[in-house]
Amino acid sequence: MVVYLDHAATTPMLPAAIAAYAEAMGVVGNPASVHSQGQNAKRMLEESREIVAASLASDPIEVVFTGSGTEAINLGIKGLYWARAPRRRILVPGGEHHATLDTVEWLAQHDGAVVEWIPLDENGRIDLGALEAAIAHDPLDVALVSVIMANNEVGTIEPVAEVAVLAAAHGIPVHVDAVAAYGYIPVDFRTLAAAGVSALSVSAHKVGGPVGIGALVLGRATTVEPLIHGGGQQRKVRSGTQDVAAAVSFAVAASALSREQLAAHGGRETARLSRLRDRVIEGVALLAPGAQLNGDPINRLPGNAHFSFAGCEGDSLLFLLDAAGVSVSTGSACQAGVPEPSHVLRAMGRSEAESRGALRITLGHSSTDADVDALLAALPAAHAQALAAGMADRVPGH
Amino acid sequence: MVVYLDHAATTPMLPAAIAAYAEAMGVVGNPASVHSQGQNAKRMLEESREIVAASLASDPIEVVFTGSGTEAINLGIKGLYWARAPRRRILVPGGEHHATLDTVEWLAQHDGAVVEWIPLDENGRIDLGALEAAIAHDPLDVALVSVIMANNEVGTIEPVAEVAVLAAAHGIPVHVDAVAAYGYIPVDFRTLAAAGVSALSVSAHKVGGPVGIGALVLGRATTVEPLIHGGGQQRKVRSGTQDVAAAVSFAVAASALSREQLAAHGGRETARLSRLRDRVIEGVALLAPGAQLNGDPINRLPGNAHFSFAGCEGDSLLFLLDAAGVSVSTGSACQAGVPEPSHVLRAMGRSEAESRGALRITLGHSSTDADVDALLAALPAAHAQALAAGMADRVPGH
Repeated sequence: MVVYLDHAATTPMLPAAIAAYAEAMGVVGNPASVHSQGQNAKRMLEESREIVAASLASDPIEVVFTGSGTEAINLGIKGLYWARAPRRRILVPGGEHHATLDTVEWLAQHDGAVVEWIPLDENGRIDLGALEAAIAHDPLDVALVSVIMANNEVGTIEPVAEVAVLAAAHGIPVHVDAVAAYGYIPVDFRTLAAAGVSALSVSAHKVGGPVGIGALVLGRATTVEPLIHGGGQQRKVRSGTQDVAAAVSFAVAASALSREQLAAHGGRETARLSRLRDRVIEGVALLAPGAQLNGDPINRLPGNAHFSFAGCEGDSLLFLLDAAGVSVSTGSACQAGVPEPSHVLRAMGRSEAESRGALRITLGHSSTDADVDALLAALPAAHAQALAAGMADRVPGH
Repeated sequence: MVVYLDHAATTPMLPAAIAAYAEAMGVVGNPASVHSQGQNAKRMLEESREIVAASLASDPIEVVFTGSGTEAINLGIKGLYWARAPRRRILVPGGEHHATLDTVEWLAQHDGAVVEWIPLDENGRIDLGALEAAIAHDPLDVALVSVIMANNEVGTIEPVAEVAVLAAAHGIPVHVDAVAAYGYIPVDFRTLAAAGVSALSVSAHKVGGPVGIGALVLGRATTVEPLIHGGGQQRKVRSGTQDVAAAVSFAVAASALSREQLAAHGGRETARLSRLRDRVIEGVALLAPGAQLNGDPINRLPGNAHFSFAGCEGDSLLFLLDAAGVSVSTGSACQAGVPEPSHVLRAMGRSEAESRGALRITLGHSSTDADVDALLAALPAAHAQALAAGMADRVPGH
């Protein structure tokens, strides 16, 4: 029995979401078809869109389904950038997910964008003063601001509403990457839109839904250039046959969220996860006193515990815990296997050595006290062995 | 019991593909994760890629999974165009799917592409002489040629290998949209690549697999700019968490194809579908003598029967057949509900009146003689009623 503590990479699907997907796959019909079978599929799709929209406090017409959170982020950022031509400046904090980093860097190479990195403080929080100053430097040339709602590696919750207010003062659209936040803290598009957010990205597989579907929530007044052209589905913003079964399954997961996690700030599930996470943080502090908690100690995702273990490699710890039947990560799964130190920790001012000893433990809907017990039971031996390996690496001539 | 004769819009999923999808959704792990659960997911993904690759006679490393056939076409065309900068010319036949049309038109507006439409003959077949002349006009400035392998509306099979040879003589890459062809005629990437094809797009839901996954087959020597940036999955060509369950299900459908439909030209399933299609064509000729078969009478998809019914609207026929429990289409599902006459028929030189009476009947793996019987039983009354409505529309002052 494997203990899964890598919910930020992907979450186990809810059994009800699997069952709904399997049942919907048996329904025949393209929702773009005019005949009754097509219209039945369309009805299933639109009912699912309503449920997903409700979980994000948005209107159904604002929800554009995509093939992934990454596609939603690409559509949000490239779509806004292209629609705002000839403006050139893109303002982005340094610790964003690679879906944002690589997208804005491509726009710089391919479309002449000028990307300006807004600094983070030592807890990974965006420097609002620096953002305000950057905007003020030449507000008319800012195409957009993109900011992560909660950091996928270190779990820091960002002040996205404050970011939006600063940008909205100059009529600048803001894209919010809410992929890591969705399901863990309330994502209320109506409130964020009132502050000035134009577009917001989420993914279903981070909340107990299926891989292969995400959404860009797009305010009614916002225009984006499409990323994928074709049949003109979804108001021409995202062409391609719409995936009814994935949407139905996403809606089941979103509906569970609406009830359990998003009903109120600090709801039952948030409290449950925060307590489990604090058990991890306290356990690690006791068993590995040299480990440092990364990210904001207070304003962090309830399921996220991220550490730098001094004197050892995160990869060693990961492999040793894996051998003991515990799945964790050194950072973003998307960058797994890449030997570079985390750009998020570097953006927070950490040394390369601190970045190398990074370990991310993330909890979610299926996590229990028994999972935390198993992690804390396996940690001392794994840590001792990783430290010994780290020492050996430093012996001259070894 | 509805008779489904709209396989070109989407096919019913094979029960085995549904079962495989449902089972795979229960497996936890992001294939990009380093731990054992991630590596297990990765193994499932790569085994699926091998099976899909085999169904296309390509190597697994050449298969890039996408979120749809439309995304694959966008990646193939935009990716080649951007990689071939500063070349400007794109050569495309006039009757392509909207995923191609709208993509090249966007490149013209947004990136300065010069799109040149290659004419079709009256059967919907590309004019190879016109293509050759267009290339010769300024071969060094041609970024790419894109051509559909079999037309999704009228079913005409295009001479893609001949197209590729003409382009390859000048080192010009060719993208092939094989979405409608895949599963109905052999799609042999190795042979096409030897002729000069660089990239080829397919979709799983047209062959008994799930919606939400497609593939771009990309020759090893071919470079494309990515459309979706991020974690760098799939050799950085298409970022985003890879959808293991969809790939597993796609592989089940692809594997059924490899055995039943693609083993040999004119295999058992091809013969079965061609016989059913010919029953439709003969039945329509008998019951509605004014109906004209569109597309190439010989070189056409085995499952496709496409007609122009003189004196009535395709939409009327569609609704009347739908009321009788038979699902058909007036053309591409992606354009359903759009009242414009088909651009494919117009590119074939048909009048607007002929385009308006269009009806597409498409068969697939679940189609039987009983389905054809039901269509032919419902057709006379539907046709008579549609003709009466068409006559009424033409009565002056009515």
